[in-house]
Amino acid sequence: MTTLPVPLGNRSYQVHVGTFDAEQACRLLTDALGAPTGVALLTDGRLLERSARAQTLVALLQQRLRNAAVLALPAGEACKTMSAVEASCQWMAEQGLDRGAAVVGIGGGATSDHAGFAAAIYLRGIPFATYSTTLLGMVDAAVGGKTGADLPAGKNLVGAFHQPRVVLADLGCFETLPRREIAAGLAEVVKAGLIATPAILDRIERHLVDGTLYEPAALDELVTMSIRMKIDVVTSDEREAGRRAILNFGHTLGHAIESAAGYELLHGEAVSLGMIAALALGEIRGHTPRQLRPRVRAALEHLGLPVDVAPWLRPDVLARMDVDKKRRSDRVKFVFVRQPGDCLLEDVRLDDLKRDVVAALV
Amino acid sequence: MTTLPVPLGNRSYQVHVGTFDAEQACRLLTDALGAPTGVALLTDGRLLERSARAQTLVALLQQRLRNAAVLALPAGEACKTMSAVEASCQWMAEQGLDRGAAVVGIGGGATSDHAGFAAAIYLRGIPFATYSTTLLGMVDAAVGGKTGADLPAGKNLVGAFHQPRVVLADLGCFETLPRREIAAGLAEVVKAGLIATPAILDRIERHLVDGTLYEPAALDELVTMSIRMKIDVVTSDEREAGRRAILNFGHTLGHAIESAAGYELLHGEAVSLGMIAALALGEIRGHTPRQLRPRVRAALEHLGLPVDVAPWLRPDVLARMDVDKKRRSDRVKFVFVRQPGDCLLEDVRLDDLKRDVVAALV
Repeated sequence: MTTLPVPLGNRSYQVHVGTFDAEQACRLLTDALGAPTGVALLTDGRLLERSARAQTLVALLQQRLRNAAVLALPAGEACKTMSAVEASCQWMAEQGLDRGAAVVGIGGGATSDHAGFAAAIYLRGIPFATYSTTLLGMVDAAVGGKTGADLPAGKNLVGAFHQPRVVLADLGCFETLPRREIAAGLAEVVKAGLIATPAILDRIERHLVDGTLYEPAALDELVTMSIRMKIDVVTSDEREAGRRAILNFGHTLGHAIESAAGYELLHGEAVSLGMIAALALGEIRGHTPRQLRPRVRAALEHLGLPVDVAPWLRPDVLARMDVDKKRRSDRVKFVFVRQPGDCLLEDVRLDDLKRDVVAALV
Repeated sequence: MTTLPVPLGNRSYQVHVGTFDAEQACRLLTDALGAPTGVALLTDGRLLERSARAQTLVALLQQRLRNAAVLALPAGEACKTMSAVEASCQWMAEQGLDRGAAVVGIGGGATSDHAGFAAAIYLRGIPFATYSTTLLGMVDAAVGGKTGADLPAGKNLVGAFHQPRVVLADLGCFETLPRREIAAGLAEVVKAGLIATPAILDRIERHLVDGTLYEPAALDELVTMSIRMKIDVVTSDEREAGRRAILNFGHTLGHAIESAAGYELLHGEAVSLGMIAALALGEIRGHTPRQLRPRVRAALEHLGLPVDVAPWLRPDVLARMDVDKKRRSDRVKFVFVRQPGDCLLEDVRLDDLKRDVVAALV
C-alpha cells in the first residue's frame, strides 16, 4: 500500500493506493471518518450487484459502523443528475442521518462525484470518503474535491468543492473491471504524462512494447504516479484559480465529443480524441513540436483508444464547446503541451479553436 | 440609507437598508458585482407580475448590465425545490452564463435562498447579490450566507454556505407587502430582541401601544436593529459551530409546526408558536422567568400572530422534530432565553422536549 498525503490545511487527507482486503479497507475508512452518528453507503448499483468484493466491503461497513445503510445508485454516469442527488439526500433524511453523519461513495468517478456532491449539500455539508473501484475514478475524480452533477445542457455544470476525508484506490477491483474501461482510464494517465510527469509516458510506452501494461505492478505504479501528479496540482491551486486548469488538457473538445456521443464513448475515449486535437492545435500555434502527436497517437491506438478526430468535427459537436464550464465570454484558457511535462495556458477564442481544429484535422 | 458592513475576510460585504429608487438600487448592485459577463435576475414570479417597483428595477438592470436576463421563479416557498434550482441552473446554461457571470435574487427569503443556492452550485459557484423585498427576507434569509432548498422530508435540508456580494433591503417594498406578511416577519424581529437585543423588544411594545409600529420610520429602525444583530452573530460564527445556533430560538418546534401546516401558516407565524413553546420549556427547566412568556405572548398577539400552541402538539407534528437539521442523534442544541438578550444553549433529548412541551401547554 502507498499512502499519499494531500496537504490542504484543515481539509488535508490521505489517499491510499493498494489492494485491500475488506478488513483493511473498512479500518482505513472508519479511522478517517471517526465515529459518525450514521453513514450513507452510496454505491454504484451495478457494482453492488456484480462485485463480490464490493458486497463484502459493504456488509462489513454495515457491521462496523453505527447506523450504516446502503443505497444502490443508478450505475455510472446515470447517477449524476440533480434528481438522483436529491433522491440520495431525501433517502439520507429518511435514514435519520444528522450533521454528525458521513457519506461513503463506493464506485467509479461518477459515484464519487455524486456522493461528494450529496455530502456537500446535505444539511449544508457533512463529511465523506471515497472508495474508488475504477482506474479512471482513481486518477481523475477521486482526488481534488471537485464534486457535482450534470445538467441537460452539459456535464458537471453544477457542483461544489468538497474535499473527502480519505480516498481508497483499491487496485483489487481491476480484476473485474472490463479491459475497455481500464484502457479508457489510461487516457487520463497519458494526460498526466503529457502535462506534468514525462516518466509516465515513457513507462506506458515501455509496457506497451513489453506487453506488461495490464500487469498489476505496472498499473499500480502508473496509478500511483498519476495520483501523485494530481495531488501536486490540486494542492497548489485548490479552487482552480490558475495552474489546476492544466488538468483540462484534451478536455475542451473531449467534453464536447463526449456529450455529443452520449453513451457511445467512455470519458477516457473522448479525452483521447480531445488530446489528439489539442496537440494538432498546438502545432498550428507553434507551441507543440510536430513529432509529439504521432508518438501520443501510437500509444493511444495501442491502448485501443479512438484517435481519429475528423468524423467528430461536425457543427453540432463544435457548438457544444460553447457550454464549456471553463469558458469566459467567447474565450477559453486552452492547454497546449510544449514537451511532455511542460505545458502552456493560453487564452484563445473558441471560434478560432473551432476553425483551426477543422483546418488541421479534416 | 443605512449601510451595515459584514466583515468576513475575503467574503466581506455590505447590507444597505433604506428606500431605494431603481437608479440607486441598480447602482448599488452593479457596484458590488463589478462587470460580470452575464447576469441571471432570478425573481419571484408573483412579485414580477404585480410590483411596478420590481418591474422597473428589473428593466433597468437589463439595460445597464451586459447579457442580463430575467427568470420568473415559482412564487414563495414553491421555488425552494431541487428541481426548481436545477431549472434555474439549466436556464443559466442556456443563457450562456459562464464563470464570470453573477446571479441577483429579487424577492423574499425563499427567492434569496433559491438564488444563492443556484449561484453556489452553478459551475461550482459564481457570485450573487440579494435584493430583498419582504421584512422576513431582510431580517432572516438575506444575511449570513445560508442558502438552500427543501426536501420532501423537510425544510432547508439541502444547501450551501455562500455569501452574497451585497444585500439591499428595500423598505419601499413594504408599501405593497400584505400586513399579514409584515407581522409574520416581525416574529423574527421579536426573536432578535429575545436572544440578543432587548431594546428591540422594548421598541416593539412601545410602538404597539402608540399604534406607530407600521410607520416607515419604526419599521426601518426595527429592521436595521435586527439585521445588525444578525450580522453580529453570523460574523462571530459563520458556519454555525457555536453561537450562531441562538438564531434557532423558537425554530425547533416552529419548523415542525410549519412543515405540518403546509401553506396554512407563514414561517413567522410558526416561529411565533415555537417561541411560546420554547419559553414554556425554559420555565420547566428553570432557565426562563415566568413573567417573560406572558409579556412576549401579549406582543405577538397584538401583532396578530398565533400564540395558542396546544392544538399543534399532535403526535404527527412532534414527530417532525426528528428531522430537525440541527439534531445530533436523538439530541438537539436547544435555545433557552434567560432574560431578553441573554440566552443559553443546552443539549437536550428530543423525547424530553416533546414530553415537556405537552406537559406545559396542553
